[in-house]
Parts: sequence; C-alpha cells; structure tokens
Amino acid sequence: MTRIGILGYGNLGRGVELAVRQNADMELAAVYTRRDPASVSIATEGVPVKLATDLDAGTEPIDVLIIAGGSATDLPELTPKYAKLYNVIDSFDTHANIPTHFANVDAAAREGGKLGLISCGWDPGLFSLNRLYANCMLPEGADYTFWGKGISQGHSDAIRRIEGVADAKQYTIPVQAALDAVRSGNNPELTTREKHTRECWVVLEDGADAAAVEKQIVEMPNYFADYDTVVNFISQEELDRDHAGLPHGGFVLRTGTSASGSPMKIEYSLELGSNPEFTSSVLVAYARAVARLAEEGAMGCKTVFDIAPAYLAPQDADFLRAHML
Amino acid sequence: MTRIGILGYGNLGRGVELAVRQNADMELAAVYTRRDPASVSIATEGVPVKLATDLDAGTEPIDVLIIAGGSATDLPELTPKYAKLYNVIDSFDTHANIPTHFANVDAAAREGGKLGLISCGWDPGLFSLNRLYANCMLPEGADYTFWGKGISQGHSDAIRRIEGVADAKQYTIPVQAALDAVRSGNNPELTTREKHTRECWVVLEDGADAAAVEKQIVEMPNYFADYDTVVNFISQEELDRDHAGLPHGGFVLRTGTSASGSPMKIEYSLELGSNPEFTSSVLVAYARAVARLAEEGAMGCKTVFDIAPAYLAPQDADFLRAHML
Repeated sequence: MTRIGILGYGNLGRGVELAVRQNADMELAAVYTRRDPASVSIATEGVPVKLATDLDAGTEPIDVLIIAGGSATDLPELTPKYAKLYNVIDSFDTHANIPTHFANVDAAAREGGKLGLISCGWDPGLFSLNRLYANCMLPEGADYTFWGKGISQGHSDAIRRIEGVADAKQYTIPVQAALDAVRSGNNPELTTREKHTRECWVVLEDGADAAAVEKQIVEMPNYFADYDTVVNFISQEELDRDHAGLPHGGFVLRTGTSASGSPMKIEYSLELGSNPEFTSSVLVAYARAVARLAEEGAMGCKTVFDIAPAYLAPQDADFLRAHML
Repeated sequence: MTRIGILGYGNLGRGVELAVRQNADMELAAVYTRRDPASVSIATEGVPVKLATDLDAGTEPIDVLIIAGGSATDLPELTPKYAKLYNVIDSFDTHANIPTHFANVDAAAREGGKLGLISCGWDPGLFSLNRLYANCMLPEGADYTFWGKGISQGHSDAIRRIEGVADAKQYTIPVQAALDAVRSGNNPELTTREKHTRECWVVLEDGADAAAVEKQIVEMPNYFADYDTVVNFISQEELDRDHAGLPHGGFVLRTGTSASGSPMKIEYSLELGSNPEFTSSVLVAYARAVARLAEEGAMGCKTVFDIAPAYLAPQDADFLRAHML
C-alpha cells in the first residue's frame, strides 16, 4: 500500500481523499492542516487530521505527501520546504514561474534525498503531455489549446473583488468557430478574443449599480478587456442552484503535415464534471509513480515529462502489454 | 546526429525516410532491402541502398534500425534477429501476439546488449498510451476505441483474394451514433456491428458475377460477417482516382466518474492523411528515445509504456518545462 498524506483540505484536498478511494493500492494516512485540526472534519473515518507542523520533523508515516495548496503563495513556499523531508507532489500551475519553482524543489529534494513532482494535473499535466507528444509526432505544425467550458476560479475571484458584487462565477468558453477553424487544418492564427469568450454570473449587493459593475468587469485589464464578455445578473439563490459546480475541461490540438504534405490532426479533450476532483485523480496516479521511483532511488524534482507511463498504473508490465497496448 | 537505418522500403520505409527529414537531429544512414539494391530507388540523394544481409555482421554504422516490415511474418523473425546486433524499433501490431514477440525481442536484445522497442505507431502506440493514461486517471469507467475513417489494408487484401475481383479498397468507418452514445457519458455496451461499418470499393474482372462477389464479401467470417458492409462496384480508373490514398485515424475515449459521482470524459483522436507516414513519424520520434536510452545503458525490450515522454523530444528538459508544460 502506498501511504498518502494530504496537506491542505480545500477543494483539492477533498478531491485527493476521494481519488484515493478509487485506487485499491493506496491508503490515506493523514490529512495535515494549518487550521485547528479539531475544526476540520474529513470524509474518511479513522484517518487522523493533524497539524501541518507535525510534518516538520520528517517522521510522519507517509510515502508521498500531496500538497493541495494554491500556486500564488502556498506552493512556492510549501513544496520546497517539504521536499527536503518527504516525497512530494503539487499541482503548481503558474506556467511562467515553473522553471523557478522546479529549481527550488529540485535543490530541496536533492538535499533531503527525496523525490518531488511539480505541476501535475491537467494543465499543466495531461495537456502538457499531449502538447509534447503531438509536437514530437508532428514536428511541422501548429499548436492550439482551448479551455472550457468551465469555471475559472481566478476570474470569479476578480469579479467578487469589485465593489457592489456579492458573489460571482465566471465561465471560460471556447469559441466554436475557432475550434472549427483549427479542426479544418488550416493552421489559423487566432487572437485571444477569437479563441474564448467569458460568461459572468453576478449577484449584486443591495443598491449596487449594475451598469457600473458591468463596465468594471468588461474593461478589467488582463482578465476581461481582451475578451468578448457577457455579464448576467442573477439572485444568490439562482447562482447557488445553477452554478454551484466546478466543471472544466478543454482541448489540445496540433495540426500539421508530413514531409510529403499529407495533412495530420491530433486532438485531445477533457470534459470534467469537477475540476478539483479530476486534478486530484491525476495527482494520485502520479503519487503511485513517485512512490515507485523513490523506491528505485530516484531523487530531485521531476515533471510529468519525466515519468514513463507504466509507472502510473496499478497493474504490472505484463498485464499492460497484454491488455492495453 | 542519430543515424537511422531502415530495413524494408515499402510504404512504411518510405514514410520513415520522409519523417527523418522533419527532424534536424536525425540522419538517414542507409536503407536495407531483401530485394536487389539496384532495383530500389530511394528519394534521398547520397544515401546507400544495401543488402539486408549487410546487417548480419552487426557492424553497420547506425544508431537505430527501424524495421519496416509486416507483422504477420516479417517482424516475428526480423526484430529478434536484429535486436541482437542493433538497437531496433518495429511497429508490430498483432495485439494478441505482443507478449510472445516482446519475450523474443527482449531475450535477443539482452543477449546482444542492445535495446529494442516494439509495437510503436498509433495503435498499438499513441492509442495505447491514451488508454493507459485514461485508465490511471479514471479508475472507474469504460474504454472505447473506434477506428477510421480509414483504409484497412488487411480487409482490402481479403477482398482482392476473392475470385473475380481485380482490385479493391476497404474503409473502416466509425458509426456516428455509437460515438455520440459514448460521448453522452452513459457507458453504453456496443456490439461490433454497432461500432463500425465497412465500405468496400471493388473493381471486377471482366465477366465476373457482381452478386456472387458481393455475397462472398459481406458473408466473409471475421472480416465482414459481423459488420454492416456496403459494397460499391467501380472502374479501375475511379478506384485509382478517388481511393489512392491511405488515410486513417480513430478515437480513444474513456468515460467515468469520480468517487463522488462527478462525470468525466477523456477523448483522443487522430485524423491522418497518410497512415504509413504518421506511423513513421511516431517511429522516428521513438528512435530518438531509443538512441538516448541505449546511450544511458538501457537494454532489453521496451514498449511505449516504458519511455518517459521527455526522451522523445529534440529539445532539452529546461526548454520543455519552460515552453510545453
């Protein structure tokens, strides 16, 4: 059995707890929290909730620590810290900062003789794998990634910070015409606005000025100004009833040609009823790989690019060759 | 530069020659043939065509030998034979015989201290990878593979062996209703007939009995009897004009749920203007991996399941993390 520790019990931590149940060779050893453990009620009976500081001695009985924190401030601090003490995995998703985060985790893990895996999930993660495989198979071509339809937590938060907004959810939606243009194989050049639209569902505070809120949303730099944005005002009950989930997904496409000019198209897509639960499933599959590689003596930091697929599967190599190849 | 040798110069061998041109770190060292080399004219200037027997001393200046032969009789003999002498790759695609072929190549490669990679292409190959990744991420779900629309060489050959048939091409076509049912997420159970149809384009010999030929096709066990098959009779000119290509492709889907019941769907698809040219691109990308792994001292037989994705790419790990993760 691979003993999994979870650090952080938000949406992602709860997702990891669920994902462990679907893998018979995994067991949840403990949940670690920076809150008061007595205030954290987890779904699994008989599993302790401990203080995050209990990890600091490096003696907790876990094979892999899954760090279920945010990329802005949690993971840059926590992943290197614990990579010295345990084999760790995170889902660090600030693409631009991956090289720095990698270097920090690599140094820490090597210092402790441990193995770390960063940026594991679906993007970065499975989408990255598909970009890599597709680029290797079609060296001459063009890459496209579309996200959605799904809830963007960052954009929803940005709306909620506007004065007069009580609550909000934002969906990122790929533009069907852009997807169709890519699938036609013409390698179109697409602007930000042409690829995705943003759909906002906003609950106003009493007396707030809807027109002013809408203007602030659609003109917000980086988040909305470069997109066609639709703002819908609804009640809190409607938001809770119709927009409570965290669905997401997207498409990775590469179109290209062989040296003789034969057209080729590779498309990968995900449609996820729950973004954090799927990310968690990916984390748990890679936790299996991390435990095995650490057992073999691997150390330092890796990414999904460095893990041979067979390490992810609970079955042995003979089974995989006979049944999945 | 990785020096590639090609054994066999049919559709696949020619595809490998083309694919090498799209990879600046690869060079075609020689083509080996069991025919008279003087009768084989290759597309690349300055590259020798040699006798296959020239390989037998194990002294040819190549890093990887790509064995571009058929799975029925060529590869079971040739891949183990040459795996003793060179690092080799093949696209062995008789799924039921993969375990035996693996064992033979593994023993031979270990005897010679070489590395072999078998069953490399898109199915087996990229489709297998997608089945494996999807199963690891969605442990509770159902798998579906659809092939087409594309030319099945085996089924085309089977038609051509019927008395009275001058020439023929057969397309395997996925049934849209079956794809839609899978995409709906209901995990349908589908019969062979429900998943694919078979479309045949047949040129009759003078005086042949069309009705008798059609009956023989549609009732042929294994090949056609379990499918809805449409037979079209056309002239040789029409066949040559409209059905000269070797397009193919298909879909790998897995639908499932998280432990909390959230629905998830993973879909991978290929649309290939040329089946042998794409298979060749996959072979050449994996040749890069084989050369690198052999350099690191790896030996024995591997499959795509055993190769970490980063080994496939011409770029280094820093570049991949910064640009593709």
